[in-house]
Amino acid sequence: MPETTVRVLDKVNSPDDLKKLDIKEMYELSNEMRELIIKKVNTTGGHFGPNLGIVETTIALHYVFNSPVDKFVFDVSHQCYPHKMITGRKEGFLNPESYLKYTGYTAPEETDHDLFKIGHTSTSISLATGLAKGRDLLGGRENIIALIGDGSLTGGEALEGLNNAAVLGSNIIIIVNDNDMSIAENQGGICNMLTELRENNGEVENNFFKSLGFEYHYISDGHNLEKLIETFSEVKDTDHPVLIHIHTIKGKGFEPAVVNKESFHWILPNTLDHLNDEPSEQGESYESLTKDYILSKANAGEPIVAMNAATPGVFGWNKEFRNKLGSHYIDVGIAEQQATGMASGIAKRGGKPILAFMSSFVQRTYDQLSQDMALNNAPVTMLIFWGGISNADATHLCTFDIPLISNIPNIVYLAPTCKEEYLRMLDWSYNQNEHPVAIRVPFELTTSGVEDKTDYSILNKYQMVEKGEKVGIIALGSFFRKGKEVKELLKKECGINATLINPRFITGIDKDMLEDLKSNHSVIVTLEDGELDGGFGEKITRFYGGSSIKVLNFGSHKEFTDRTPIEELYQRYHLTNELIVQDIKNVL
Amino acid sequence: MPETTVRVLDKVNSPDDLKKLDIKEMYELSNEMRELIIKKVNTTGGHFGPNLGIVETTIALHYVFNSPVDKFVFDVSHQCYPHKMITGRKEGFLNPESYLKYTGYTAPEETDHDLFKIGHTSTSISLATGLAKGRDLLGGRENIIALIGDGSLTGGEALEGLNNAAVLGSNIIIIVNDNDMSIAENQGGICNMLTELRENNGEVENNFFKSLGFEYHYISDGHNLEKLIETFSEVKDTDHPVLIHIHTIKGKGFEPAVVNKESFHWILPNTLDHLNDEPSEQGESYESLTKDYILSKANAGEPIVAMNAATPGVFGWNKEFRNKLGSHYIDVGIAEQQATGMASGIAKRGGKPILAFMSSFVQRTYDQLSQDMALNNAPVTMLIFWGGISNADATHLCTFDIPLISNIPNIVYLAPTCKEEYLRMLDWSYNQNEHPVAIRVPFELTTSGVEDKTDYSILNKYQMVEKGEKVGIIALGSFFRKGKEVKELLKKECGINATLINPRFITGIDKDMLEDLKSNHSVIVTLEDGELDGGFGEKITRFYGGSSIKVLNFGSHKEFTDRTPIEELYQRYHLTNELIVQDIKNVL
Repeated sequence: MPETTVRVLDKVNSPDDLKKLDIKEMYELSNEMRELIIKKVNTTGGHFGPNLGIVETTIALHYVFNSPVDKFVFDVSHQCYPHKMITGRKEGFLNPESYLKYTGYTAPEETDHDLFKIGHTSTSISLATGLAKGRDLLGGRENIIALIGDGSLTGGEALEGLNNAAVLGSNIIIIVNDNDMSIAENQGGICNMLTELRENNGEVENNFFKSLGFEYHYISDGHNLEKLIETFSEVKDTDHPVLIHIHTIKGKGFEPAVVNKESFHWILPNTLDHLNDEPSEQGESYESLTKDYILSKANAGEPIVAMNAATPGVFGWNKEFRNKLGSHYIDVGIAEQQATGMASGIAKRGGKPILAFMSSFVQRTYDQLSQDMALNNAPVTMLIFWGGISNADATHLCTFDIPLISNIPNIVYLAPTCKEEYLRMLDWSYNQNEHPVAIRVPFELTTSGVEDKTDYSILNKYQMVEKGEKVGIIALGSFFRKGKEVKELLKKECGINATLINPRFITGIDKDMLEDLKSNHSVIVTLEDGELDGGFGEKITRFYGGSSIKVLNFGSHKEFTDRTPIEELYQRYHLTNELIVQDIKNVL
Repeated sequence: MPETTVRVLDKVNSPDDLKKLDIKEMYELSNEMRELIIKKVNTTGGHFGPNLGIVETTIALHYVFNSPVDKFVFDVSHQCYPHKMITGRKEGFLNPESYLKYTGYTAPEETDHDLFKIGHTSTSISLATGLAKGRDLLGGRENIIALIGDGSLTGGEALEGLNNAAVLGSNIIIIVNDNDMSIAENQGGICNMLTELRENNGEVENNFFKSLGFEYHYISDGHNLEKLIETFSEVKDTDHPVLIHIHTIKGKGFEPAVVNKESFHWILPNTLDHLNDEPSEQGESYESLTKDYILSKANAGEPIVAMNAATPGVFGWNKEFRNKLGSHYIDVGIAEQQATGMASGIAKRGGKPILAFMSSFVQRTYDQLSQDMALNNAPVTMLIFWGGISNADATHLCTFDIPLISNIPNIVYLAPTCKEEYLRMLDWSYNQNEHPVAIRVPFELTTSGVEDKTDYSILNKYQMVEKGEKVGIIALGSFFRKGKEVKELLKKECGINATLINPRFITGIDKDMLEDLKSNHSVIVTLEDGELDGGFGEKITRFYGGSSIKVLNFGSHKEFTDRTPIEELYQRYHLTNELIVQDIKNVL
C-alpha cells in the first residue's frame, strides 16, 4: 500500500518544521493526524481515545517548546502518537507497511525526543522532577514538561511526585490532561475536585493544586490551539512549579469514541469496521465463570465485593456487570496500593473481597501484599490475569508475577489447569478465613470434564496425574498441557513412561510426593509459564539439591523482551516440546 | 523490680474504666502515661517522641469511642503505647520484667483492640476504608477511625487512600496527627500546606482536604483534652468522611525530645542517662565511608545527589552531613516511589544519584525499580542497608531484598565483603552509565587490607578466593566470613580442603567458574544472609540442576519471624558453622 498524502504533515519532518506553520495549517495538521491515527489504530489495534484527545496539545507543545532540548515526559505514553508523527516518525502512520515499525509508547531507541520507555501509569511527574533536578545540578536551563491524565493522577507515585514537584524551586511544568475519564469511569475525591474545577472554569473555593503550592492555569477548551499556545508561551521558562489543567475530549474527532470512551480507550484491529454489528455471543471463559460466581454470591446477599484498580476491561467486567453488582463492586481508580490495603481491611472486617489484577500491574503494590495482606493473613482472594510469556511490549510483560508473589510468606498462590479446578479453588478461597489466596487465571479455558473435589485447605498437596518412571514432569498451571504433550513425546521418542504431576500450588513444595519420586526417577522437569529466576521450578530444584536427582527448569529468562514473537521466545527458552525432550535426553 | 504505682492508671484496666474518669483525672493519667513511656523506652529502646505526642489524643479517642466495636487503625502504629496501656496491657509499662511482653506496634494476637500488625507507613487510611466498606456490606454501624501522622501522609498509599475515603459515602474519620515532623524534617507541598493551616488556625484560602471533599476540623492544641473530646463527640457516628487535623507536639513532656525531635523519634536503651555526654568519637564504618565518598564528590562540584525517603538516620546522614551537602541532598519524604522515579530522571539527565534504602522499605517501590529504573537502564546507584537475618519485629524484617531486587532484569546487585570492595563497587557504579546498580551494604565493617582493583564492568565474575576440591563454598556478602569459617571447620573435621568463592554479584551466574568446579567437586554450598526462596543460592542450584553436582543452599526460610532471637533462627535455618558442616557431611 502506498503512503498516504497529507498536505501539511508532508512538510513536517521535525518540530522545527512545525514551528513554521500558521495557525490554520496547524488546525489542518490536527485533522490529518486524527485521520491517520484512526486508520492506523484500526489496522494494528492500540490506544485510540487517548491519542485523539491530545492532538492539539501536542502540536502546541512542539510549537512553543524546543524538544529535545526542552523535555517532555508522557505519562503511560499511550497518547504519544501525535508526538511521534511530529518527531520524525510519521512514516509509521503514513505507510501501512511501517505501521509496526514504532512501539505504541515512547521509546528512547527511536529518537532523542523520547526520554523514557514508559507504559505503566503515574510515573511522569516523578521522572520529570528527576530531570529537573538533574538539570539544576548540571546548570542547564531547559523546560521540563510532564503530561499526565486525570486518571493517572490518582496513582501513588503521581501524588508523591506532585508533593515533591511543588517544592522543587525551579522550572517544572505539569500538564493535567483532564478528559474526565480513567480507562473506565474516574474515581474518588480527586475526580470530584477536577469536575468542580471544570464546571467552574478553574475558579473554585478550595483549589487542590494551589493548596500544594502550584501556580495554576485552566484551559477550558483543550482543542483550541490559540489558547494552548498562549498559555504555554506564558509559562515557558518559568522559574517555579506550574500546573496547567486542560480540559480535553477523549476520542475527539471520532464520535463513537466520544460517546463510549471506555470501549475506545484501546481497540482491537478492525473494530471500526464492525461498529454496527450485533455483539456476538460470548462463549464460556474464565472471565464469564468468574463473573457468574461473583454475581451469584452478590445476589444471595453475601458480603462479596469485586475489586480492581481501573482496569475492569481486562477481566471482562463491563458496565452491565458493574451495574448489576452495585455496592458489591469497587474500582479504586489507578491505585493498586489502595486496592490491596482496602481489600485487606474488608477481609479483616468479615467482607469477601475478590481483587483482580493484570499480572503486569500487581507489582505496583508489593509492600501492601506483604504488609497489609500477607503479614496480617487477611483472607483476600486475588485473581491474577494474563500471567504468562507473550509478545507484549516491554512495558507490559506478564512473566514476573510468580517471583513477585510467591516469595512473600503466608500467601497461597494457586495455579489451576482447567475450569473445574479454577471454580473449586475460587470457592475454597472465598469460604476460608485463614490465608490470603491468589489464583493465576489461565488465558485459555480448558476442561477436564471431571468435577474437582480437592480440599485445598490441605496446602501444598500436588496432584499425581499419572505415575510413571525415570522422568517426572511437574507442569504448572497454563503449562500443564505442555507437560502432557512432553510426556507423550517422551513416550514416542524414548519409550519412557514419564510421571506427570499437576502441582496446583505455586507457593509450596509437596515434600512427600517429591521424596517418593526419588525411588524410581532420575530426572525431574519443571515447566512454568513465567520467569525462572525466583520462580516455581527453582524451589523444586533446591529441594533435590542434596540428592542425585537431576532437575531441569523450563520457563522464561530474566529479561525485558519487547514485542518479540512468542515462537522466537519459545525457541530461545527451549520451550517447544521438541527442545524440552532433547534437553531431557541430554541428561538421561 | 516491683510494678510502679500510679494513682489513675491503676484504676484503668479497659476503655470502660477510662470512661468513668473526670477530666482532671484524665490529665493526671496523661502525666502518668508519659512518665511510664519515658522510663520504659529508655530501658528497652523504641519509639519515643511519637508516643509522647499522642497521649491526650489516645485518651480522648477511648473516652469518646467504644473500642473494640469502634475501630482504630494507627498508622505505622509506632505511637500505640498509650493505646496499649488503656487496652489491658499496662503491665508492659508498669512492670520492668514485662517490658518486652508486648510488641512496639499494634498486634492483633495481643488484644481485640488491635486490628492489624502494622509497622510500615502510610497504610492506615487504606485499611480503614476497607474496614468501613466491610462494615457497610455487613450492615454494621460502628465508627472507623484512622490516625495518621503528617509525615506518613506523603506516602502513595495514604494519598490513594485519601482519594478513596473522600467518596466512601459513609462513616470514616481520619485524624491527621500533625507534629510538623516526619522522622526527619517534613518535605514537600503537603508539608507547606499543613504549615499554612496551622499558622492560620485551620482557615486558609485553598484547603487541601476540603478540595477532596472532606468535612474538615482543626484542633490547634492537640493536648487539650476538653477540645479533643468535644470534637470527637461532634463527629462520632457521622455518616460521611470527616478529617480532623490536630496540631500536637512530638516528644511533649520531655523537653530535649521537643527541642530535638529527630534524635528522639526512636532511641536506644539508656539514651536519657547520657544526654550531657560529649558525643563519642565514631569509628570508621560503612556509613562514614559512604558519607566521605559523597562529600568528596559534592565538594568537587560533581552532580552527585544523596537521596533517601525520610530515613536519613538509618544511613548516619545526620543534620551536619545534610547541611554540608546542600542541594546535593534530597529527602523526598515518606515516598519511596518518588525516590526511585526521581533518581531515574536525575540519572537520565546526567546527574549522579546515590539512593539509599533500608532493606525492609525497598519493597515499597517495586514497580518503579522495574519500570522507571531497570527498564530504562537508568544508572542509579542504590545502597541497601541492614539487609540480613535479625531479631527484628515482623514488620521490619530485612531478609526479602535479594528475592525482590535480583529477579528484576537489568539491575546489577552487588554484595561486597569488605570495605575495599565496597569502595571499589561504589566508585565503579558512580562512574558508569550503563546499569542501575544496587549495593548491599554490610552491617559490620571488615577489611581485607588489600586494595580492590576489580573491573566490575565485567559483570557476574566471581572471585576465586582459594581453590580446593570436593566441596565448593560460595559465600555471599556479609556471609563471606561464615564461608571462611565453614571452610576451616571442614578442614579440621574432615580434612577437606574446600574451595572458597566470593561471588560479589548477586544478580548473575559466573558460568565459567561454576563449570570449572564440576571437574573436582561433588558438593557446592551457597551461603546467603537472607531468604532462600527466590534468592541467590537457588540460581546456583538451577545451574547445576542437570549435572551430578549436589548443591546445598543456606539462608533464611520464607516466613515472618517476630523478634525471634538470632541464635534461634540460626539453629532453625541450620546456619551455625557446625550445622552447615554436618549437612555437608550428610551428602558427601
